Amino acid sequence: MADISKSVPFDRSQFEELMKKRFFFSPSFQIYGGISGLFDYGPPGSALQTNIVDLWRKHFVIEESMLEVDCSMLTPHDVLKTSGHVDKFCDWMCKDPTTGEIFRADHLVEEVLEARLKGDKEARAKEAGATNAPVQEESDDKKKRKKKVKEIKVTRLDDEIVREYEFILAQIDNYDGQQLGEIMKIHDIRNPANNGELESPRQFNLMFQTQIGPSGGLQGYLRPETAQGQFLNFNRLLEFNNGKVPFASAMVGKAFRNEISPRSGLLRVREFLMGEVEHFVDPQNKQHDRFDEVAHIPLRLLPRGVQLEGKSDVLEITIGDAVEKGIVDNTTLGYFMARISLFLEKIGIDMSRLRFRQHMSNEMAHYACDCWDAEIQCSYGWIECVGCADRSAYDLTVHSKATKTPLVVQEALPEPIVVEEYVVEVNKKKFGPRFKRDAKAVEEEMLNWSQEIKEVKSAHLASQGKITVAANGVEHEVDAELVTIEKQQRKEHTRTFTPNVIEPSFGLGRLLYCLMEHSFWARPEDTQRGVLSFPAVVAPIKALIVPLSRNAEFNPVVRQLSAKLRSLGVSNKVDDSNANIGRRYARNDELGTPFGLTVDFETLENGSITLRERDTTKQVRGSQEDIINALVALTEGKMLWTNAVEKFGEFNATQE
Amino acid sequence: MADISKSVPFDRSQFEELMKKRFFFSPSFQIYGGISGLFDYGPPGSALQTNIVDLWRKHFVIEESMLEVDCSMLTPHDVLKTSGHVDKFCDWMCKDPTTGEIFRADHLVEEVLEARLKGDKEARAKEAGATNAPVQEESDDKKKRKKKVKEIKVTRLDDEIVREYEFILAQIDNYDGQQLGEIMKIHDIRNPANNGELESPRQFNLMFQTQIGPSGGLQGYLRPETAQGQFLNFNRLLEFNNGKVPFASAMVGKAFRNEISPRSGLLRVREFLMGEVEHFVDPQNKQHDRFDEVAHIPLRLLPRGVQLEGKSDVLEITIGDAVEKGIVDNTTLGYFMARISLFLEKIGIDMSRLRFRQHMSNEMAHYACDCWDAEIQCSYGWIECVGCADRSAYDLTVHSKATKTPLVVQEALPEPIVVEEYVVEVNKKKFGPRFKRDAKAVEEEMLNWSQEIKEVKSAHLASQGKITVAANGVEHEVDAELVTIEKQQRKEHTRTFTPNVIEPSFGLGRLLYCLMEHSFWARPEDTQRGVLSFPAVVAPIKALIVPLSRNAEFNPVVRQLSAKLRSLGVSNKVDDSNANIGRRYARNDELGTPFGLTVDFETLENGSITLRERDTTKQVRGSQEDIINALVALTEGKMLWTNAVEKFGEFNATQE
Repeated sequence: MADISKSVPFDRSQFEELMKKRFFFSPSFQIYGGISGLFDYGPPGSALQTNIVDLWRKHFVIEESMLEVDCSMLTPHDVLKTSGHVDKFCDWMCKDPTTGEIFRADHLVEEVLEARLKGDKEARAKEAGATNAPVQEESDDKKKRKKKVKEIKVTRLDDEIVREYEFILAQIDNYDGQQLGEIMKIHDIRNPANNGELESPRQFNLMFQTQIGPSGGLQGYLRPETAQGQFLNFNRLLEFNNGKVPFASAMVGKAFRNEISPRSGLLRVREFLMGEVEHFVDPQNKQHDRFDEVAHIPLRLLPRGVQLEGKSDVLEITIGDAVEKGIVDNTTLGYFMARISLFLEKIGIDMSRLRFRQHMSNEMAHYACDCWDAEIQCSYGWIECVGCADRSAYDLTVHSKATKTPLVVQEALPEPIVVEEYVVEVNKKKFGPRFKRDAKAVEEEMLNWSQEIKEVKSAHLASQGKITVAANGVEHEVDAELVTIEKQQRKEHTRTFTPNVIEPSFGLGRLLYCLMEHSFWARPEDTQRGVLSFPAVVAPIKALIVPLSRNAEFNPVVRQLSAKLRSLGVSNKVDDSNANIGRRYARNDELGTPFGLTVDFETLENGSITLRERDTTKQVRGSQEDIINALVALTEGKMLWTNAVEKFGEFNATQE
Repeated sequence: MADISKSVPFDRSQFEELMKKRFFFSPSFQIYGGISGLFDYGPPGSALQTNIVDLWRKHFVIEESMLEVDCSMLTPHDVLKTSGHVDKFCDWMCKDPTTGEIFRADHLVEEVLEARLKGDKEARAKEAGATNAPVQEESDDKKKRKKKVKEIKVTRLDDEIVREYEFILAQIDNYDGQQLGEIMKIHDIRNPANNGELESPRQFNLMFQTQIGPSGGLQGYLRPETAQGQFLNFNRLLEFNNGKVPFASAMVGKAFRNEISPRSGLLRVREFLMGEVEHFVDPQNKQHDRFDEVAHIPLRLLPRGVQLEGKSDVLEITIGDAVEKGIVDNTTLGYFMARISLFLEKIGIDMSRLRFRQHMSNEMAHYACDCWDAEIQCSYGWIECVGCADRSAYDLTVHSKATKTPLVVQEALPEPIVVEEYVVEVNKKKFGPRFKRDAKAVEEEMLNWSQEIKEVKSAHLASQGKITVAANGVEHEVDAELVTIEKQQRKEHTRTFTPNVIEPSFGLGRLLYCLMEHSFWARPEDTQRGVLSFPAVVAPIKALIVPLSRNAEFNPVVRQLSAKLRSLGVSNKVDDSNANIGRRYARNDELGTPFGLTVDFETLENGSITLRERDTTKQVRGSQEDIINALVALTEGKMLWTNAVEKFGEFNATQE
């Protein structure tokens, strides 16, 4: 990372202006008025994304021999009904019955209460006589949102009410629709635009619906996560891995979420790129055999206990110690947390603004049994960018049940074991004629009994000579001559189990956004121009080639240099516009290009060229061959800029 | 490419068996019964796809400094209404009113007529006494489809009827719904399953519909192509390119097509990966300045004229000659055709099974003015895999009109030019009061007249003192005192034009499939096992590491070798299963891994290892360092296998 401590304070509007001007991203369909929550990446944003995905593949998929798959986005109803998304992947919305306007209930409560607290603060400030002191600690985003909440009345609230509002705001993610409805009634929260009363919150499913096939076809959805496709292919993946766990599958792809009212720019969008890993592991052995490679890595943790005390103090600790002390449950979870941290460092996230926060038990997704989020601080606050959840055996179990397909691992036991259990056996000859069309249901009911029930029934059958079985809605009486339930012994040569799943899940779009914010700064001597200090490995373009002027003499060298770099895998761009060199470099700093090469008249004479580094703006000069070799080493991370300066000596350009 | 001429004949069922067994791909949601037209790629298919996309980016985007973007898949109705997809992106379907079954009309006609022709052929064969000669020239796929058409009656048809059926089949892509309906009536085509009469063909739009936002939200679709997002961002892209054309944008991403009844495996699916380039060019100058680099490249062309004669003879010609002779319209189209051919060769397509077919004028998409398809022959016939269309100014023009946003290039003229044209000027003071609420419409109508109309109206106004203007559904009379229409001169310093678009559009999923077929063969000495001879650059995994046995002594070397190769960018896999080495290699031939490294006891003694090549199964042996260097050079295409054999000498292993 560049030393951007000398930078002027972060200004989101300046940052956004640069993003727009250099086409990192912009709202989709803008000439049609745009659609909130949908964005297009322009050339630098798109290249940055490609490089991040590429690094993700190298860091996770290739380094760990994960089984990458690419599954369908269109997903039939049954799959998402089983996974729980049809019933539980919802937000609460409320409607203004007169205008038809729709609000996301928790966001509305939040905005109105925050506005009232702000009004109270101003009223208190006025009372204290400090009428001119502006209340400025809030971010731009909040200010913008507040515009929706008209009439921020400067009204002093009772201390009791202030405490209540603050309590509600701290808990806002935990309320269900009924609770939100009650809060809205008690605190008289209405449509801020017209003060109209709102309907009670209703559930709104966040999946995009569609029909697959011609009219009257199959109900389907756009996937809300990439995980399900991996679970459904479990048996094929297990076979590909020669039947053994642990192994991990992985997928990079788009997922969709029909937000009620998207906000926060790229952070809460309707279509987003995810990278998900599903690590399948024996529930009795969640040890990771490469944990020793990462045990020394320090992480900043915010465990559940600390949050319960209402605090947010971060614990700095190596992942090895965290697992040993039981803060992090097992070495597999720990291994991935450390690997995630290494990845984020590699792409250029500011590590002092990264923390791992453990989920509270009431905020976990419906499938998770433990979860640590990698949260990154940006101007919108702490943002969840990577979830690292233990989904236990939830998904494989529910899909297996719904499809009657075993999704299990069979492990050869070193020694066969003897199992004693109650076994139900019916007398086929008599059973069918006796129960006729109910025969199958009655038999299945008995076979499905747990060992505990079978034990009870066995005793009953022995003592009473008959038992009762509920099947097809009727109590059937089954005589001892029709069935036996007896303890039997058998040898087992394999152990059968449903693996647990540890899932590191990356919101790649969110990461991209946080990275762009963290990389942005401005030089004190030129505060109007931004610089994006991306590490070379993810920078959209690695080198800018700048001929001194538009003199045609430079063209052959420039073209040849560009082709040479391309063949060496160094993406580059030629800027032969009219602007002076300083201006062209500044323009390029805005694109985050780490290196610049200047071709001037001396180049034509003796072949030497100048190499400039973006963050320091320092230059070195050498023969074309030496400079190209250095550039390749620099972009591949095999040489530091300080080494280059040592090697070539600093060059003080006069041509700028 | 491997010399697979010695292979046994291609057998699609053997090929598909391998695809399934090694999890190249499989139907999505299979444990839920599957959904036709949706497929998942497993680890080798997914890695192959990633490598093809990566090469596509290098070959097109990076090599030509294209502006890659990543735009939303969810697309609002208005955009696709303007582009023409809401009205024209349709197929014809017909329904059986009693069973509710739905057929794609053209496919049904095709299947029924083909079945009847087959019945006729068999009847004629019987008449000739050759009752046992099976009619075997048809592909497996056709056979499968025929199963739907029950009762292939062995009935001799009139020669006249045979000729008519053959004529219909040759034209099948050209009929609209009404014509298909007539053919079905005349030739009594019914539901093959129950002989029920079908409803007349109705249009079915092939886009997946959804709602964006909460209930009653915005009507949207999943994009049917990636092109539209690029057109809508034209102004930003032009600005990014400093206001100059030509330039190209590019996008890789999924697109969607709600097929009525998908078939042909991966070739006709509902969700597919595309790579599209939009090359924006001055309509007055479609010269490509790098054409000289490709002019010598020979292509196999099937021009429109040849097809009109009912022939399919391919013309082998260099692209330079083809443009010179006017067969291919311009050097930009020609440049891309040659670059496409080079790309297909690089990924491993058999060039003798590639041709460029020019579209007939009646089969082009609604936006195209010329189009050459790169078609690849596989077991399903000649498949369109890359379209290379001149979309003219269609898209930019319609979007500009619909949004009232200029999507044009302004080019500074070297010398200002004097333009003479008729100009309409209204007398504002009198015009408003006279036409009241129609005033604006009347004025706009006149302003929008073409120069030709303005000239006529100007003369009329001069001679009659008034003209008529149709606006808001009424004829208005406009007097000479309200308007002047006169010839005026003005100097123009810039030329404004809407660029034309040349679009190479890649069906990456289709390419992937054809490549897998072309790469598949079987050794005559082991016909039961397939080999996939992918070029190293796209192969899912570059090297297999095989320890001689499961002896733990090998583990450190194997682990270290694997890590070393990974760090050099050579993806690899360790196979330390129980199977013997020959079997492990054969298994790996099925995955298309080009190289294998054997670690044996000699490796532990003196560090030497064996390198095996997939297609020849030949081996060489050398020190670990030399072999690794050779392997890197081989996978990067910097060394040929024959060079490696020369360098190290052939090694005859005894351990297999």
